[in-house]
Amino acid sequence: MNFLKPYASLIESELQSLDLPESPFSLYEPQRYILQNSGKRIRPILSLLGCGVCGAPIEKVIPAALAVELLHNFTLMHDDIMDQAESRRGLPAVHVKWDVSTAILSGDSMFVQAFLQLHKLDNDIDFKWMHEVFTDSINRVCEGQALDMEFEGKTEVSVDEYLKMISGKTSALTSASLKLGGIAAGTSKDKVNRLGIIGHSLGVAFQIQDDLLDVTADAEKFGKRSAGDIYEGKKTFLMVHTLERCTLQEKNWLQEALKNRPLSDNSVKAVIKLFDKYGVIETAIEQMEHYYKEAENEVETFDDSNYKADLMNLIKFLKNRDY
Amino acid sequence: MNFLKPYASLIESELQSLDLPESPFSLYEPQRYILQNSGKRIRPILSLLGCGVCGAPIEKVIPAALAVELLHNFTLMHDDIMDQAESRRGLPAVHVKWDVSTAILSGDSMFVQAFLQLHKLDNDIDFKWMHEVFTDSINRVCEGQALDMEFEGKTEVSVDEYLKMISGKTSALTSASLKLGGIAAGTSKDKVNRLGIIGHSLGVAFQIQDDLLDVTADAEKFGKRSAGDIYEGKKTFLMVHTLERCTLQEKNWLQEALKNRPLSDNSVKAVIKLFDKYGVIETAIEQMEHYYKEAENEVETFDDSNYKADLMNLIKFLKNRDY
Repeated sequence: MNFLKPYASLIESELQSLDLPESPFSLYEPQRYILQNSGKRIRPILSLLGCGVCGAPIEKVIPAALAVELLHNFTLMHDDIMDQAESRRGLPAVHVKWDVSTAILSGDSMFVQAFLQLHKLDNDIDFKWMHEVFTDSINRVCEGQALDMEFEGKTEVSVDEYLKMISGKTSALTSASLKLGGIAAGTSKDKVNRLGIIGHSLGVAFQIQDDLLDVTADAEKFGKRSAGDIYEGKKTFLMVHTLERCTLQEKNWLQEALKNRPLSDNSVKAVIKLFDKYGVIETAIEQMEHYYKEAENEVETFDDSNYKADLMNLIKFLKNRDY
Repeated sequence: MNFLKPYASLIESELQSLDLPESPFSLYEPQRYILQNSGKRIRPILSLLGCGVCGAPIEKVIPAALAVELLHNFTLMHDDIMDQAESRRGLPAVHVKWDVSTAILSGDSMFVQAFLQLHKLDNDIDFKWMHEVFTDSINRVCEGQALDMEFEGKTEVSVDEYLKMISGKTSALTSASLKLGGIAAGTSKDKVNRLGIIGHSLGVAFQIQDDLLDVTADAEKFGKRSAGDIYEGKKTFLMVHTLERCTLQEKNWLQEALKNRPLSDNSVKAVIKLFDKYGVIETAIEQMEHYYKEAENEVETFDDSNYKADLMNLIKFLKNRDY
């Protein structure tokens, strides 16, 4: 992933110079903390590449790229409270290191910081359009997260409902990230829409892959407990497909098992057997590849450039990840 | 307060037709719930009046007025979690009726709905300016809330720190409410700034009055427990002034008492005695009147109109409230 380094370095250095205020300390320190615990910065990099493939200097989109990263980290801060997650990327979650109130308020403020970043965009950029795409994406992220939380209490979740959920929770932001790049570049509506399709497909592929890696990945490399989603009784791609394909008897058993979280080791083994029996892992691989392919096809429609090549490389890199 | 009715009715009917989506139910139902439990709608009414005193039809600012009310209710939803408040205007708080996760996410979504409202503004309105004022205000609200939470753990809070806190927590939004009215009316920077001053003064006056009513109001009418702020050991206007004026011995006692929350009946009585001894109630009345007067003086600089008269009436109404 050497090709990603220049983009990642640019985002890191811009995040370093964000200059969040010192005071109130309890408001801004948790934001610095979660931002320093760097992830892959995929979303802001998508913004840079979206801008690049439209032929504009990638610096044009930096404020929006930072906004996207701030927004993403705000959702992590609040999601960790809702999911009662103790840690994030190996460090204590904000609500654990501080407390729930601090994590709620710092998250809210981080959301505000994201919007404040947008004000730094050049005046020749269509601010209202940018703002609409940005706000629409976070609206869909909230809806996706709500659906995901509703799934917990439901025994019946269809594949369609699952796709609707990840379209919000995961794809809305990857889609917006690329679109913002196009808008910053001052490109056409059509191109912006095509960037949106790339981001959407990438998001769906990425999430199906995440569900898949839960059972196929080397747990240590993946950084999560093997079959952790099954232990937690999550309605993943694999689970909702199994629920649609299995016999009524198996379904009754499965629905009962999913209610008693965390599942026992034996139950988890039995679930994996059902995954095998109904070939849902193959379906997941197939679907993941389908969505990655869709993204690649859409990238192909753009003019050749180094940015286009790097966007293709990024897709390949994501597709081939085993963690 | 008959003069307020037409404005309040307009806001109510617009809120009724907000048309929040039905699904996800867990995301939007809490928002409908908190919005129906209507408050005084002072902030959106300020937006209408801000627009009116600048000579434009008040309908121009409706989307921003709704945005302000949504934003205010979002802060209430999250504040109630942070303050562990069980109820709000006589009904269970959202995090009590549902749960903390639902209240966090519905609040986040309500914040998003506020921004979405801004997209409905007419195209001849300076969207970026509107957005800057709006976002800046919620940024300051977050900072104010953080300071307020920090005060809880501090034994020493100066009058200046207190004023900084309420400038954010209370005044930022009343100030923005009026400014948004001016911006929607397409008025000058100078007039918008003057509207901001009115809103700021009103917010400070309103908050000092709230602190005052805690000890002077008829508890039943006020809807809060008499001296509730003292029982909770809050650093109110009265408290920070007392801490600055009392003897070292009294201060030591007071700081110790404030650590053991809730305070005992005897401690509360002793605190009220200190308020009397150091004349802080008189100071509060004086300061409250000073800020209301400042607001009135600034309103005077606008051209005469029914809206100006109503804004004056609103200030008088607020000043004379005893609950």
